[in-house]
Amino acid sequence: MASDWATFGADLHLELRGTRLRAGLMDALREAVRSGRLEAGTRLPSSRSLAADLGMARNTVADAYAELVAEGWLTARQGSGTRVARRTAPRTPVPSAPSSAPPSPPSAGTGRRRPAAPVHNLNSGTPDLASFPRADWLKAYRRALTDAPNEAFGYGDPHGRTELRTALAEYLARARGVHARPERIVICAGFVHGLMLIGQVLRARGVRDVAVESYGLDLHDGLLRRAGLGTPALGFDERGTRTEELAGLEGCGAVLMTAAHQYPLGGALPPDRRAAVVDWARASGGFVLEDDYDGEFRYDRQPVGALQGLDPERVVYLGTASKSLAPGLRLAWMVLPRDLAVEVAEAKGAVDWSSSAPDQLAFAEFLRSGAYDRHVRAMRLRYRRRRDQLVAAVAAHSPETRVSGIAAGLHAVLALPPGTEQATLRAAAWRGLAVQGVNQFRRPTVPPTLDGLVVGYATPPDSGWQGALGALCGVLP
Amino acid sequence: MASDWATFGADLHLELRGTRLRAGLMDALREAVRSGRLEAGTRLPSSRSLAADLGMARNTVADAYAELVAEGWLTARQGSGTRVARRTAPRTPVPSAPSSAPPSPPSAGTGRRRPAAPVHNLNSGTPDLASFPRADWLKAYRRALTDAPNEAFGYGDPHGRTELRTALAEYLARARGVHARPERIVICAGFVHGLMLIGQVLRARGVRDVAVESYGLDLHDGLLRRAGLGTPALGFDERGTRTEELAGLEGCGAVLMTAAHQYPLGGALPPDRRAAVVDWARASGGFVLEDDYDGEFRYDRQPVGALQGLDPERVVYLGTASKSLAPGLRLAWMVLPRDLAVEVAEAKGAVDWSSSAPDQLAFAEFLRSGAYDRHVRAMRLRYRRRRDQLVAAVAAHSPETRVSGIAAGLHAVLALPPGTEQATLRAAAWRGLAVQGVNQFRRPTVPPTLDGLVVGYATPPDSGWQGALGALCGVLP
Repeated sequence: MASDWATFGADLHLELRGTRLRAGLMDALREAVRSGRLEAGTRLPSSRSLAADLGMARNTVADAYAELVAEGWLTARQGSGTRVARRTAPRTPVPSAPSSAPPSPPSAGTGRRRPAAPVHNLNSGTPDLASFPRADWLKAYRRALTDAPNEAFGYGDPHGRTELRTALAEYLARARGVHARPERIVICAGFVHGLMLIGQVLRARGVRDVAVESYGLDLHDGLLRRAGLGTPALGFDERGTRTEELAGLEGCGAVLMTAAHQYPLGGALPPDRRAAVVDWARASGGFVLEDDYDGEFRYDRQPVGALQGLDPERVVYLGTASKSLAPGLRLAWMVLPRDLAVEVAEAKGAVDWSSSAPDQLAFAEFLRSGAYDRHVRAMRLRYRRRRDQLVAAVAAHSPETRVSGIAAGLHAVLALPPGTEQATLRAAAWRGLAVQGVNQFRRPTVPPTLDGLVVGYATPPDSGWQGALGALCGVLP
Repeated sequence: MASDWATFGADLHLELRGTRLRAGLMDALREAVRSGRLEAGTRLPSSRSLAADLGMARNTVADAYAELVAEGWLTARQGSGTRVARRTAPRTPVPSAPSSAPPSPPSAGTGRRRPAAPVHNLNSGTPDLASFPRADWLKAYRRALTDAPNEAFGYGDPHGRTELRTALAEYLARARGVHARPERIVICAGFVHGLMLIGQVLRARGVRDVAVESYGLDLHDGLLRRAGLGTPALGFDERGTRTEELAGLEGCGAVLMTAAHQYPLGGALPPDRRAAVVDWARASGGFVLEDDYDGEFRYDRQPVGALQGLDPERVVYLGTASKSLAPGLRLAWMVLPRDLAVEVAEAKGAVDWSSSAPDQLAFAEFLRSGAYDRHVRAMRLRYRRRRDQLVAAVAAHSPETRVSGIAAGLHAVLALPPGTEQATLRAAAWRGLAVQGVNQFRRPTVPPTLDGLVVGYATPPDSGWQGALGALCGVLP
């Protein structure tokens, strides 16, 4: 039962710690919700009354409410005031990773016992959406929209806006060691869009196969196959993808690699294999398609520079704002050898498929103003803290469990005893925990040799993180 | 030579007509630029000084300046004040229509005489980009970004945001007589994106051919052919597209129609042919793909309702913000029969190709708040005025020339004497006028029977309209 403000008022006891009033109030409210003292549906006092009760400025309370609404702890609706969010629903609707979501738990209420709808989301592939820098993005958007020339509102150039390509060239050179010139960059609506365009162009050039890694996203594989390409899988060992196998693949015109941080197994390609893949491309006239999906996030030392820096004429670099900022923006980019850049832009223009020009200009401004760097830095600290908490929690609850792939990125791999992955995933589903197994990423032709969980520790909002971590520890051996 | 404010001040004579001060000031400034009294590069007095001189509020002057900057009459740059824009450069770079632009004039400076680079742009297919409602759009965007739930920043549903589909369902029912329910709507990144998805789905269903009209965009035709579909062309007579021919086309599973306003010839499909196309779809199990690209703009009577209203199970409705608002936003929508909606959303999801979620939410807010209705109303008045000026100018300069297709839309067709279209286009190119001939839109299998110009009267900004009209009249017989 939802209690009423009258009852709630009598129970109000919020311990305010620390000097920062708003943060303290938020902590106290979160704690009251977490402990169950504030039930779901409970209507909170108006910001005015609570401010008067606590001797705070009304704005401090209103801001705290607004942030808690944004975090999913509270809900606000015109006419019904601010209430404690229903806890039975997940705090964040569970987005599935593009292609590898676990079988969705059947909905309740059909009479048979079924796993709970997921409440905790540790699927990989999505950053913490609650951290999207709304105010800074809006500032960049406002400035971009105000300064945009009229022609920006027209159909536009399939390469993408020059302003954005210029800002990206500077950023990618600085942050990722990419040899980027604006005319070699093509903006796309996501990594998958870029891969589809490149697949079409390679197929049109007569390429038969594009090699892929043993583990990766079905979505990528499927796209290439739909473009008419074969996708032989390279072997995998404890040092990562066996790029030396490329030399033995007849008719292979390109290879898709997550060189800086193998997806999903983690780990950077070692230097000799980096050299091998580029040597293969040079010798064979092939291309390396470098999927640098989370290159910004490396914790323990300098980021591994992009493979593209080794040979910009043989490596196609693909980057995205989906992990560093938000997938909802649909902004990604390719840096291409000259001829490919022309052909990819033509393929893109043929279907008139661009990202919104105001968004491109806003992103250019976001990069130029330093807001992107600031955001990435802040998120790197936050994700690193979560990673450390994950490692510590696993060590405490399940000391046998090895955690790997943690030097970089937004996910880690927890090794499981042989043959236990499916059972662990089922147990997770019963606990309302959405999480993926490594075998969901295994290419069909690759024999199963690993059991493990892929834990997307960036995915939940801060308010859901501890709960998700607890649920995870509960299913470990 | 740019004059200085000191000299300019002495010449200042602005006749303010009417009571609305800002509009009057803008008219007076435009007139001073048009007549040459204010030369290109001339620095205008500061808004403060001019306001003092004219006894106006400073904001009134500042607003008028800002609008004239947005329209391309003036330029404003930090530190160099507000100046009259250079007239030698085109006010708006000349965008080419997606697929049917005239051969681009070679660039100057190679020593041979060549046509001038186009200064006047009457290509069809683009609205007046200077009229994009920046302030209202920004307001909607700000509100949308502030109110967006966190999950909006995630990968999202391939159908598009519910908020937008709900707002569109309401709008399309009210404004276009479309039977729309949110679950039948799929948001896409432009008409072409939608057509590509439908083409793929129809091909996967085993459809062999999609019939097209005798005149239309190559781009659309080409997309369907690349999806593996044949594109037989229906005949055309003085009453429009001969939809009765559909019954004789074996293996034809759909027809692409611009029923409300044939593109580019103008004219609405008459009622008996509207009925015929829907009857054909019902009898054959086929689909009508209704390209309602400019349904908002009808001048002389109520808009022709969408064909989709006749049978929502057999007509796929495709609409776009590209003409009513701006192509640069990349926002369009489809209203589909139930089964097709599922399949189209799946095809879209398979390549993870969505419009930016903040943009979708902003457009939903733009619709809900009434800003879209206001903008369309204002543009309808403005385009209608231009259309009337076009008709009057042609009547004055070339009374033999018949103007057709003028009841609706953003373009008109000027009939030319048989065999003169190519020569007229060449003459236009020499005068720096970009304009298209009807035969650039003729399907390859359709015999040439018409000569004419397709005049996109919405394309130039206000500052370029009179010049473009003059150039056009100069090439008419």
